[in-house]
Amino acid sequence: MAGRDRVVSLLRQLERMASSNIRYGEGVSREIGMDLQNLRAQNVCLMTDRNLSRLSPVKVVLESLTKNGVKYKLFDNVRVEPTDTSFKEAILFAKNDSFDVFVAVGGGSVIDTCKAANLYSCHPEADFLDFVNAPIGKGKPITGALKPLIAVPTTAGTGSETTGVAIFDYTPLKAKTGIASRAIRPTLGIVDPMHTLSMPERVTANSGFDVLCHALESYTALPYNQRSPCPPNPINRPAYQGSNPISDVWSRHALHVVAKYMKRAVRDPEDLEARSSMHLASVFAGIGFGNAGVHLCHGMSYPIAGNVKTHSAKGYSVEHPLVPHGLSVVLTSPAVFNFTAPMCPERHLEAAHILGADVRQLKRDDAGAVLADTLRQFLFDLQVEDGLGALGYSLDDIPALVKGTIPQERVTKLSPRGHTEEDLSQLFQASMKLY
Amino acid sequence: MAGRDRVVSLLRQLERMASSNIRYGEGVSREIGMDLQNLRAQNVCLMTDRNLSRLSPVKVVLESLTKNGVKYKLFDNVRVEPTDTSFKEAILFAKNDSFDVFVAVGGGSVIDTCKAANLYSCHPEADFLDFVNAPIGKGKPITGALKPLIAVPTTAGTGSETTGVAIFDYTPLKAKTGIASRAIRPTLGIVDPMHTLSMPERVTANSGFDVLCHALESYTALPYNQRSPCPPNPINRPAYQGSNPISDVWSRHALHVVAKYMKRAVRDPEDLEARSSMHLASVFAGIGFGNAGVHLCHGMSYPIAGNVKTHSAKGYSVEHPLVPHGLSVVLTSPAVFNFTAPMCPERHLEAAHILGADVRQLKRDDAGAVLADTLRQFLFDLQVEDGLGALGYSLDDIPALVKGTIPQERVTKLSPRGHTEEDLSQLFQASMKLY
Ligand SMILES: NC(=O)c1ccc[n+]([C@@H]2O[C@H](COP(=O)([O-])OP(=O)(O)OC[C@H]3O[C@@H](n4cnc5c(N)ncnc54)[C@H](O)[C@@H]3O)[C@@H](O)[C@H]2O)c1
Ligand SMILES: NC(=O)c1ccc[n+]([C@@H]2O[C@H](COP(=O)([O-])OP(=O)(O)OC[C@H]3O[C@@H](n4cnc5c(N)ncnc54)[C@H](O)[C@@H]3O)[C@@H](O)[C@H]2O)c1
Ligand SMILES: [Fe+2]
Ligand SMILES: [Fe+2]
Repeated sequence: MAGRDRVVSLLRQLERMASSNIRYGEGVSREIGMDLQNLRAQNVCLMTDRNLSRLSPVKVVLESLTKNGVKYKLFDNVRVEPTDTSFKEAILFAKNDSFDVFVAVGGGSVIDTCKAANLYSCHPEADFLDFVNAPIGKGKPITGALKPLIAVPTTAGTGSETTGVAIFDYTPLKAKTGIASRAIRPTLGIVDPMHTLSMPERVTANSGFDVLCHALESYTALPYNQRSPCPPNPINRPAYQGSNPISDVWSRHALHVVAKYMKRAVRDPEDLEARSSMHLASVFAGIGFGNAGVHLCHGMSYPIAGNVKTHSAKGYSVEHPLVPHGLSVVLTSPAVFNFTAPMCPERHLEAAHILGADVRQLKRDDAGAVLADTLRQFLFDLQVEDGLGALGYSLDDIPALVKGTIPQERVTKLSPRGHTEEDLSQLFQASMKLY
Repeated sequence: MAGRDRVVSLLRQLERMASSNIRYGEGVSREIGMDLQNLRAQNVCLMTDRNLSRLSPVKVVLESLTKNGVKYKLFDNVRVEPTDTSFKEAILFAKNDSFDVFVAVGGGSVIDTCKAANLYSCHPEADFLDFVNAPIGKGKPITGALKPLIAVPTTAGTGSETTGVAIFDYTPLKAKTGIASRAIRPTLGIVDPMHTLSMPERVTANSGFDVLCHALESYTALPYNQRSPCPPNPINRPAYQGSNPISDVWSRHALHVVAKYMKRAVRDPEDLEARSSMHLASVFAGIGFGNAGVHLCHGMSYPIAGNVKTHSAKGYSVEHPLVPHGLSVVLTSPAVFNFTAPMCPERHLEAAHILGADVRQLKRDDAGAVLADTLRQFLFDLQVEDGLGALGYSLDDIPALVKGTIPQERVTKLSPRGHTEEDLSQLFQASMKLY
């Protein structure tokens, strides 16, 4: 086969459509005891956070375990927005026992922590940084077998029940990073919309913004056939493969659901239809971005969250200052999509249209501005803080924010538009104030 | 938890979103040698049919195997539309050696045969009927581990690379039946649209009709929350769970692609965009129906294919009389959707709309007629035989056709509308002549 053909064929391909095992429905988490029996679980590690341990999602799961005679031990000290330190505490808990199945009941913080606990307790010899993404960690491939992990998401946001990703704040560098490998993807996600009814208003809003950005970023990510380098051996290709005809279906669909239901879900905690739809949209968007990847909003969010100063997050029941993930992601979205629009204006126009803008009279050149305006209006309607400034950031912080974005190349390289440090700087600057 | 709530929660759920590992792109099958190396394959069983063994898809795969030094043995005696006898021949081939990976290069006939060969050679003690669907077989659950199977589909039709289904004609009863278990789902599907360029015109048309019916039937299947009985233990629930918000996304998307590209793909073998799009649509529809199920068109197709008399299929390079699967499925579609429309008229109207009908002035009561008319026009445009009559069937055959449909309850029970033998009889009768 000729050299040129070979290169073309390698670039014009979509490596794989990741798969997820999801059960969805009102009340489905009540069956988890039976699932654990089917797995012949003898000693289950159940993880959650302090706040959730008092709430209905955990109660329902515990009842089902008890009813089915499943033995478990509870770790409820997951940190909201985990750090290396909090991951290590959970890992130690898992290492000090011998669990045969892991169960995570909570938002992304709990599910990600549980993935790490499963991973490192099954690799007791490994260093913590071994499996962490390069350049912060060593990015070693995971070779050993893990225990089954059942994820029961209680937010409608991260889609962590569908992904092989676990995110944490690496405190020495004040930047979020993570572990990414298909090996840590949950065996089963139990998506029970009843669990979302207890979400506080801001948790609903912020986790919904996460869904919005997963959908928008994966839909506008660099197309799979333009990504390079493309390692010749399929086994060496990254999990994030760029936007592609399969992830597009998920991303676009999730965007439709967000447009239709997100405001209702935030405003009315009793609107089961809206909250249930958002819960499923978080799964859709998770599958979409789990295949295609995310790009600048997520890449830039990690230092925004990592450098947090005093911002305290309403509804998050935590003592420490915190920029919730969804908020840290969405605040830069107007600037980011204004910046990326020239590379695929049709997709940006289509996204604006799905989110309610009238785009009939618009030209390709208007795509960035109209999507940015549509997003600003959406955030304003949902009473989001007025930009990075409102979180306590000033222009002086921009160099640190840019510096914290550099190591996020694993995601930022999926941006459809190449970018310099100067570009990043301007994107942060444009995100200081939104309205 | 109250008894009634319990029932509701069990019914209102979607058990799982089946997952598929798909690689898609022009030329991707050239990498299969590396995949096999990655799997450390020592002795590969490569299956195909006689016709394909002389064509480019098999050549490309063999070249890649040779180039990567992968040892294999070739079985090229797959029967087009397999039977119990032809399955057994392939099983014997597999049993007489010790293969560590299976590779299927072909249409549904090859992929299904390879699934059976993998299954029974890994269960040498099992009787052939053990794993065959009840009531014809014993429908035993598959407990042992199978070898990896890589499926390289060369038709744009069955979606067999995504499903845990293997269909064959059980000659003693003249009716198609199959094996259905997640265990036989291919480990990886390599979807290389270049392979579809060599499909003869009628193979393109008939396999495209299979995609059309997978999409239409799964989209109109009994909703997942109305299916009963719903076994309390998740492990006992069937693979086909009724239409649901996840399969809907796949089915509807596949229908859009069929509407846009199928005629082009049939008419112009060089139209790579159209053939490539149909290839991916077959994957989408496969995932859709693999989750939701199909219903009457498929249930009724099995006796139509099984009782074949003299019909010889153009372009199928076989000696024996044959009603190709896609043809056997689509001929009853106008009658079937006219019959099922009253149960979910909006979905039938939407399908007609996607397929090009102007439905703006129409009422719910018109849904069945308009979808039936749209399908008839679509079939006429694609020069399909004029109904069951044109295949050699007459009214005298109807009792046999009805009798052959009865054991297909595994699929027909997913029809949104309940039906008597008299109803089936009328559906066959209405399908004798279409135009
Ligand atoms: N793994 C991935 O693919 C992925 C993707 C995106 C984000 N993340 C990570 O996930 C984390 C964020 O997760 P999140 O947004 O789901 O929130 P979270 O898990 O941090 O929870 C936020 C707060 O909401 C509370 N809460 C959660 N569910 C509740 C419910 N049903 N009722 C009442 N209170 C509830 C929690 O106790 C906590 O106080 C971040 O660390 C982020 O980086 C991971
Ligand atoms: N497992 C499932 O989920 C599933 C679903 C639907 C149908 N099926 C089964 O699949 C079978 C039908 O499969 P099919 O429609 O893919 O056709 P097929 O495998 O029966 O092949 C039809 C003909 O086309 C030829 N052919 C295939 N690809 C070609 C190519 N690229 N170039 C030239 N010739 C080519 C074959 O040699 C054969 O002569 C039936 O037995 C049906 O019951 C299975
Ligand atoms: Fe996120
Ligand atoms: Fe089919």
